Amino acid sequence: MKKIEHIGIAVKDLDFSCGLYERLLGTSCYKKEEVASESVNTAFFKTGESKIELLAATSENSPIARFLDKKGEGIHHIAFEVDNIVLEMERLKLEGFVLLNEQPKPGADNKLVCFVHPKGINGVLVELCQEVK
Amino acid sequence: MKKIEHIGIAVKDLDFSCGLYERLLGTSCYKKEEVASESVNTAFFKTGESKIELLAATSENSPIARFLDKKGEGIHHIAFEVDNIVLEMERLKLEGFVLLNEQPKPGADNKLVCFVHPKGINGVLVELCQEVK
Repeated sequence: MKKIEHIGIAVKDLDFSCGLYERLLGTSCYKKEEVASESVNTAFFKTGESKIELLAATSENSPIARFLDKKGEGIHHIAFEVDNIVLEMERLKLEGFVLLNEQPKPGADNKLVCFVHPKGINGVLVELCQEVK
Repeated sequence: MKKIEHIGIAVKDLDFSCGLYERLLGTSCYKKEEVASESVNTAFFKTGESKIELLAATSENSPIARFLDKKGEGIHHIAFEVDNIVLEMERLKLEGFVLLNEQPKPGADNKLVCFVHPKGINGVLVELCQEVK
Protein backbone atom coordinates (compact mmCIF):
# COMPACT_ATOMS: atom_id res chain seq x y z
CA MET A 1 0.00 0.00 0.00
CA LYS A 2 1.71 3.20 -1.17
CA LYS A 3 -0.46 5.93 0.33
CA ILE A 4 -4.03 6.96 1.13
CA GLU A 5 -5.44 7.58 -2.35
CA HIS A 6 -8.73 8.96 -1.04
CA ILE A 7 -11.31 8.92 1.74
CA GLY A 8 -14.85 8.20 0.52
CA ILE A 9 -17.66 10.04 2.35
CA ALA A 10 -21.33 9.14 1.83
CA VAL A 11 -23.60 12.21 1.56
CA LYS A 12 -27.25 12.76 0.76
CA ASP A 13 -27.00 15.97 -1.29
CA LEU A 14 -23.84 16.23 -3.41
CA ASP A 15 -24.17 19.93 -4.30
CA PHE A 16 -24.81 20.98 -0.71
CA SER A 17 -21.90 18.89 0.60
CA CYS A 18 -19.59 20.20 -2.14
CA GLY A 19 -20.11 23.71 -0.79
CA LEU A 20 -19.49 22.45 2.75
CA TYR A 21 -16.19 20.75 1.89
CA GLU A 22 -15.05 23.73 -0.17
CA ARG A 23 -15.41 25.86 2.97
CA LEU A 24 -13.90 23.19 5.25
CA LEU A 25 -10.86 22.43 3.11
CA GLY A 26 -10.44 25.92 1.66
CA THR A 27 -10.18 24.44 -1.84
CA SER A 28 -12.52 23.89 -4.79
CA CYS A 29 -13.96 20.62 -6.04
CA TYR A 30 -11.80 19.77 -9.08
CA LYS A 31 -13.91 17.00 -10.62
CA LYS A 32 -17.42 15.57 -10.59
CA GLU A 33 -18.02 12.18 -12.17
CA GLU A 34 -20.84 9.64 -12.34
CA VAL A 35 -19.94 5.97 -11.83
CA ALA A 36 -22.99 4.38 -13.44
CA SER A 37 -21.97 0.81 -12.54
CA GLU A 38 -22.11 1.71 -8.82
CA SER A 39 -25.08 4.11 -9.15
CA VAL A 40 -23.16 6.98 -7.58
CA ASN A 41 -22.25 10.58 -8.34
CA THR A 42 -18.84 11.60 -7.02
CA ALA A 43 -17.07 14.90 -6.32
CA PHE A 44 -13.32 15.15 -5.65
CA PHE A 45 -11.15 17.51 -3.59
CA LYS A 46 -7.35 17.46 -3.33
CA THR A 47 -5.63 17.54 0.06
CA GLY A 48 -1.87 16.93 -0.02
CA GLU A 49 -1.16 13.73 -1.98
CA SER A 50 -4.66 12.37 -1.18
CA LYS A 51 -8.25 13.19 -2.12
CA ILE A 52 -11.62 13.48 -0.46
CA GLU A 53 -14.33 11.76 -2.55
CA LEU A 54 -17.94 12.67 -1.79
CA LEU A 55 -20.40 9.95 -2.84
CA ALA A 56 -24.14 10.38 -3.45
CA ALA A 57 -26.52 7.64 -4.60
CA THR A 58 -28.23 7.92 -7.99
CA SER A 59 -30.66 5.05 -7.30
CA GLU A 60 -32.16 3.15 -4.38
CA ASN A 61 -30.04 0.12 -5.29
CA SER A 62 -26.77 1.99 -4.94
CA PRO A 63 -24.43 0.70 -2.20
CA ILE A 64 -24.35 4.32 -0.99
CA ALA A 65 -28.16 4.42 -0.64
CA ARG A 66 -27.99 1.26 1.50
CA PHE A 67 -25.15 2.72 3.60
CA LEU A 68 -27.11 5.97 4.18
CA ASP A 69 -30.21 3.99 5.19
CA LYS A 70 -28.25 1.89 7.66
CA LYS A 71 -25.67 4.27 9.08
CA GLY A 72 -26.49 7.78 7.87
CA GLU A 73 -23.99 10.20 6.35
CA GLY A 74 -20.31 9.71 7.19
CA ILE A 75 -17.05 8.11 6.17
CA HIS A 76 -17.73 5.18 3.84
CA HIS A 77 -14.28 3.82 2.98
CA ILE A 78 -10.50 4.37 2.89
CA ALA A 79 -8.79 3.78 -0.44
CA PHE A 80 -5.09 2.93 -0.70
CA GLU A 81 -3.04 3.30 -3.86
CA VAL A 82 -1.19 0.19 -4.99
CA ASP A 83 1.24 -0.39 -7.88
CA ASN A 84 -0.13 -3.77 -8.91
CA ILE A 85 -3.69 -4.47 -7.78
CA VAL A 86 -3.64 -8.14 -8.83
CA LEU A 87 -0.53 -8.88 -6.74
CA GLU A 88 -1.92 -6.91 -3.79
CA MET A 89 -5.23 -8.81 -3.99
CA GLU A 90 -3.30 -12.10 -3.94
CA ARG A 91 -1.20 -10.94 -0.97
CA LEU A 92 -4.28 -9.92 1.04
CA LYS A 93 -6.07 -13.20 0.30
CA LEU A 94 -3.05 -15.13 1.56
CA GLU A 95 -3.11 -12.95 4.72
CA GLY A 96 -6.72 -14.05 5.30
CA PHE A 97 -8.59 -10.92 4.19
CA VAL A 98 -11.85 -11.39 2.25
CA LEU A 99 -12.11 -9.56 -1.09
CA LEU A 100 -15.51 -8.27 -2.23
CA ASN A 101 -14.64 -8.63 -5.92
CA GLU A 102 -12.45 -11.41 -7.28
CA GLN A 103 -11.30 -9.37 -10.28
CA PRO A 104 -10.29 -5.69 -10.33
CA LYS A 105 -13.15 -3.52 -11.60
CA PRO A 106 -13.32 0.02 -13.05
CA GLY A 107 -13.83 2.75 -10.42
CA ALA A 108 -14.06 6.55 -10.50
CA ASP A 109 -11.11 8.76 -11.47
CA ASN A 110 -9.50 6.36 -13.97
CA LYS A 111 -8.77 3.56 -11.49
CA LEU A 112 -8.99 -0.21 -11.23
CA VAL A 113 -10.38 -1.03 -7.79
CA CYS A 114 -11.06 -3.87 -5.37
CA PHE A 115 -12.92 -3.69 -2.05
CA VAL A 116 -11.90 -5.67 1.04
CA HIS A 117 -14.60 -6.91 3.43
CA PRO A 118 -14.89 -4.63 6.50
CA LYS A 119 -15.68 -7.54 8.83
CA GLY A 120 -12.06 -8.60 9.04
CA ILE A 121 -10.71 -5.03 9.45
CA ASN A 122 -12.47 -3.55 12.51
CA GLY A 123 -15.49 -2.53 10.44
CA VAL A 124 -13.45 -0.44 8.00
CA LEU A 125 -14.27 -0.80 4.30
CA VAL A 126 -10.93 -0.72 2.45
CA GLU A 127 -10.51 -0.10 -1.28
CA LEU A 128 -7.40 -0.85 -3.32
CA CYS A 129 -6.81 1.50 -6.29
CA GLN A 130 -4.42 1.14 -9.18
CA GLU A 131 -4.22 3.98 -11.70
CA VAL A 132 -5.02 2.93 -15.27
CA LYS A 133 -2.16 4.11 -17.51
CA MET B 1 -5.61 22.28 5.38
CA LYS B 2 -2.28 20.93 4.06
CA LYS B 3 -2.86 17.19 3.92
CA ILE B 4 -4.51 14.24 5.67
CA GLU B 5 -2.33 13.91 8.77
CA HIS B 6 -4.00 10.68 9.90
CA ILE B 7 -7.16 8.60 9.95
CA GLY B 8 -8.27 7.58 13.45
CA ILE B 9 -9.86 4.12 13.78
CA ALA B 10 -11.63 3.01 16.97
CA VAL B 11 -10.81 -0.58 17.96
CA LYS B 12 -11.58 -2.78 20.94
CA ASP B 13 -8.29 -4.68 21.23
CA LEU B 14 -5.22 -2.62 20.30
CA ASP B 15 -2.74 -5.53 20.14
CA PHE B 16 -5.03 -7.67 17.98
CA SER B 17 -5.77 -4.78 15.61
CA CYS B 18 -2.08 -3.86 15.40
CA GLY B 19 -1.39 -7.30 13.97
CA LEU B 20 -4.30 -6.91 11.56
CA TYR B 21 -3.12 -3.54 10.21
CA GLU B 22 0.47 -4.77 9.94
CA ARG B 23 -0.78 -7.50 7.61
CA LEU B 24 -3.16 -5.16 5.75
CA LEU B 25 -0.67 -2.34 5.17
CA GLY B 26 2.42 -4.54 4.90
CA THR B 27 4.25 -2.29 7.37
CA SER B 28 5.00 -2.32 11.11
CA CYS B 29 3.48 -0.15 13.80
CA TYR B 30 6.15 2.49 14.46
CA LYS B 31 4.82 3.98 17.70
CA LYS B 32 2.43 3.23 20.56
CA GLU B 33 1.47 6.05 22.90
CA GLU B 34 -1.04 6.61 25.69
CA VAL B 35 -2.97 9.92 25.69
CA ALA B 36 -4.05 9.97 29.33
CA SER B 37 -6.15 13.15 28.96
CA GLU B 38 -8.38 11.35 26.41
CA SER B 39 -8.20 7.92 28.10
CA VAL B 40 -6.90 6.24 24.95
CA ASN B 41 -4.02 4.06 23.86
CA THR B 42 -2.88 4.71 20.30
CA ALA B 43 -0.81 2.83 17.71
CA PHE B 44 0.54 4.47 14.53
CA PHE B 45 1.32 3.22 11.03
CA LYS B 46 2.83 5.23 8.16
CA THR B 47 1.23 5.20 4.71
CA GLY B 48 2.65 7.73 2.25
CA GLU B 49 2.65 11.18 3.87
CA SER B 50 -0.23 10.17 6.19
CA LYS B 51 -0.74 7.84 9.14
CA ILE B 52 -3.29 5.36 10.39
CA GLU B 53 -3.94 5.82 14.13
CA LEU B 54 -5.62 2.95 15.98
CA LEU B 55 -7.45 4.10 19.13
CA ALA B 56 -8.47 1.91 22.07
CA ALA B 57 -10.19 3.13 25.24
CA THR B 58 -8.39 2.87 28.59
CA SER B 59 -11.53 3.68 30.63
CA GLU B 60 -15.30 3.64 30.31
CA ASN B 61 -15.32 7.44 30.19
CA SER B 62 -13.09 7.60 27.14
CA PRO B 63 -14.69 9.17 24.02
CA ILE B 64 -13.57 6.00 22.23
CA ALA B 65 -15.48 3.78 24.70
CA ARG B 66 -18.63 5.84 24.02
CA PHE B 67 -18.05 5.64 20.24
CA LEU B 68 -17.61 1.84 20.41
CA ASP B 69 -20.79 1.48 22.48
CA LYS B 70 -22.80 3.56 20.03
CA LYS B 71 -21.36 2.65 16.64
CA GLY B 72 -18.97 -0.27 17.09
CA GLU B 73 -15.49 -0.45 15.65
CA GLY B 74 -14.67 1.68 12.61
CA ILE B 75 -13.34 5.00 11.37
CA HIS B 76 -13.56 7.57 14.15
CA HIS B 77 -12.12 10.76 12.60
CA ILE B 78 -10.07 12.38 9.83
CA ALA B 79 -7.23 14.65 10.93
CA PHE B 80 -5.84 17.37 8.67
CA GLU B 81 -2.46 19.02 9.17
CA VAL B 82 -2.49 22.81 9.42
CA ASP B 83 0.35 25.33 9.71
CA ASN B 84 -1.35 27.56 12.26
CA ILE B 85 -4.13 25.92 14.24
CA VAL B 86 -5.34 29.16 15.86
CA LEU B 87 -5.82 30.87 12.49
CA GLU B 88 -7.50 27.77 11.03
CA MET B 89 -9.86 27.56 14.03
CA GLU B 90 -10.79 31.22 13.49
CA ARG B 91 -11.35 30.65 9.76
CA LEU B 92 -13.62 27.64 10.38
CA LYS B 93 -15.65 29.50 13.01
CA LEU B 94 -16.22 32.34 10.54
CA GLU B 95 -17.33 29.74 7.96
CA GLY B 96 -19.98 28.51 10.43
CA PHE B 97 -18.33 25.29 11.67
CA VAL B 98 -18.68 24.44 15.38
CA LEU B 99 -15.43 23.71 17.25
CA LEU B 100 -15.46 21.15 20.07
CA ASN B 101 -12.64 22.87 21.93
CA GLU B 102 -12.18 26.64 22.01
CA GLN B 103 -8.41 26.41 22.59
CA PRO B 104 -5.94 24.02 20.92
CA LYS B 105 -5.17 21.08 23.21
CA PRO B 106 -2.31 18.53 23.34
CA GLY B 107 -2.94 15.38 21.26
CA ALA B 108 -0.95 12.24 20.47
CA ASP B 109 2.24 12.30 18.41
CA ASN B 110 3.47 15.75 19.53
CA LYS B 111 0.53 17.73 18.15
CA LEU B 112 -1.78 20.56 19.14
CA VAL B 113 -5.30 19.56 18.10
CA CYS B 114 -8.85 20.84 17.77
CA PHE B 115 -11.95 18.82 16.89
CA VAL B 116 -14.76 20.14 14.68
CA HIS B 117 -18.35 19.06 15.38
CA PRO B 118 -19.45 16.27 13.00
CA LYS B 119 -23.03 17.56 12.82
CA GLY B 120 -22.09 20.31 10.36
CA ILE B 121 -19.88 18.05 8.20
CA ASN B 122 -22.06 15.13 7.07
CA GLY B 123 -21.41 13.22 10.29
CA VAL B 124 -17.62 13.28 9.86
CA LEU B 125 -15.55 14.12 12.96
CA VAL B 126 -12.68 16.34 11.76
CA GLU B 127 -9.50 17.05 13.72
CA LEU B 128 -7.04 19.86 13.04
CA CYS B 129 -3.40 19.08 13.91
CA GLN B 130 -0.45 21.40 14.18
CA GLU B 131 2.95 19.91 14.93
CA VAL B 132 4.58 21.24 18.09
CA LYS B 133 8.10 22.41 17.19
